[in-house]
Amino acid sequence: MDSALPPLLEKAVEELHRLPGIGRKTALRLALFLLGQDEELATRLGESLIHLRQDIRFCRHCHNISETEVCPVCASPQRNPHLLCVVSDIRDILAIEATQVYNGRYHVLGGLISPMDGISPSHLHLADLPERVTTEAVEEVILALPATPDGDTTAFYISRLLQDSDVSISTLAKGIAVGDDLEYIDELTLGRSIQQRTPFK
Amino acid sequence: MDSALPPLLEKAVEELHRLPGIGRKTALRLALFLLGQDEELATRLGESLIHLRQDIRFCRHCHNISETEVCPVCASPQRNPHLLCVVSDIRDILAIEATQVYNGRYHVLGGLISPMDGISPSHLHLADLPERVTTEAVEEVILALPATPDGDTTAFYISRLLQDSDVSISTLAKGIAVGDDLEYIDELTLGRSIQQRTPFK
Repeated sequence: MDSALPPLLEKAVEELHRLPGIGRKTALRLALFLLGQDEELATRLGESLIHLRQDIRFCRHCHNISETEVCPVCASPQRNPHLLCVVSDIRDILAIEATQVYNGRYHVLGGLISPMDGISPSHLHLADLPERVTTEAVEEVILALPATPDGDTTAFYISRLLQDSDVSISTLAKGIAVGDDLEYIDELTLGRSIQQRTPFK
Repeated sequence: MDSALPPLLEKAVEELHRLPGIGRKTALRLALFLLGQDEELATRLGESLIHLRQDIRFCRHCHNISETEVCPVCASPQRNPHLLCVVSDIRDILAIEATQVYNGRYHVLGGLISPMDGISPSHLHLADLPERVTTEAVEEVILALPATPDGDTTAFYISRLLQDSDVSISTLAKGIAVGDDLEYIDELTLGRSIQQRTPFK
């Protein structure tokens, strides 16, 4: 419907359309919104996106995003260096930090092993994990990976990778979520949470 | 949940969050997507947004977006200069152009008169409309405005504004849409399309 867009607008719509979940109509709406606002808004947005990608770094220890060579979590003396939580994605760190119950460090894989999507262990930050476990004298590795086939595959791979390390490996507890109504829980989860029931305190 | 975001990321999320329909979680997802892509993608997107707002101009006749002082529609000798279609928004032009049935020029108001939202006629491109009708020898003004109270108010205002001009004023036909099932049409539309029935051809 918009073959008649001026080239500048067409270009902006095209670029916005590359973002996940942004269709052409939404892209056009966003672009026209920016046109209707102060020039400063578009400039600030554009520059922040350019700087974001150009200037951000990743922590050389845990691969978390960071503006310094070592991220604040790895650098903090407040955090327990002997506890290492392996996550797939940076967003998982944000979710775990929000719980305020974890005080160790992280290791971001940058994805999950997925034969279907052609993602092999070499695509992920896995090679440096055993060395990190040794040099940082990690006592426990927590696998905080999604409860999906790819998550399970990755967890299994890591458990094999670390089998020669003197480290205990744990995974997140699986079971019913806070607020869950029993009748709506899938039978696999409910079955597992019956089998793995815990003492009532 | 993301108080721990690095400042660069926080800034990008904040700016993306200013866009309509983009919540903080979506903004974070978009920013992390850009982080995971080639640097070129973020740079191209950022630059296109900056250029869009800085370099785009509006046609001095019809206020359509344009990269030239007079937009291609106003400049085209193929278009009928005596037919003028008044629309609220630039997107309406795109929608009308897509029908391929209109061959006149446009006049973009840049909104609708809305006492509720504090938008008065002086906020819109209305003052230059009578002069345009005269200098371009317009014979018919088509009010292609939304069928809403604000659209009706604006249409009424324009009809008064042009009452001294020697021009006929028309509005879009109202009635049932192509593919409409009678039982799902609101009674106002259905009633009006019965009253304003047209000869069967």
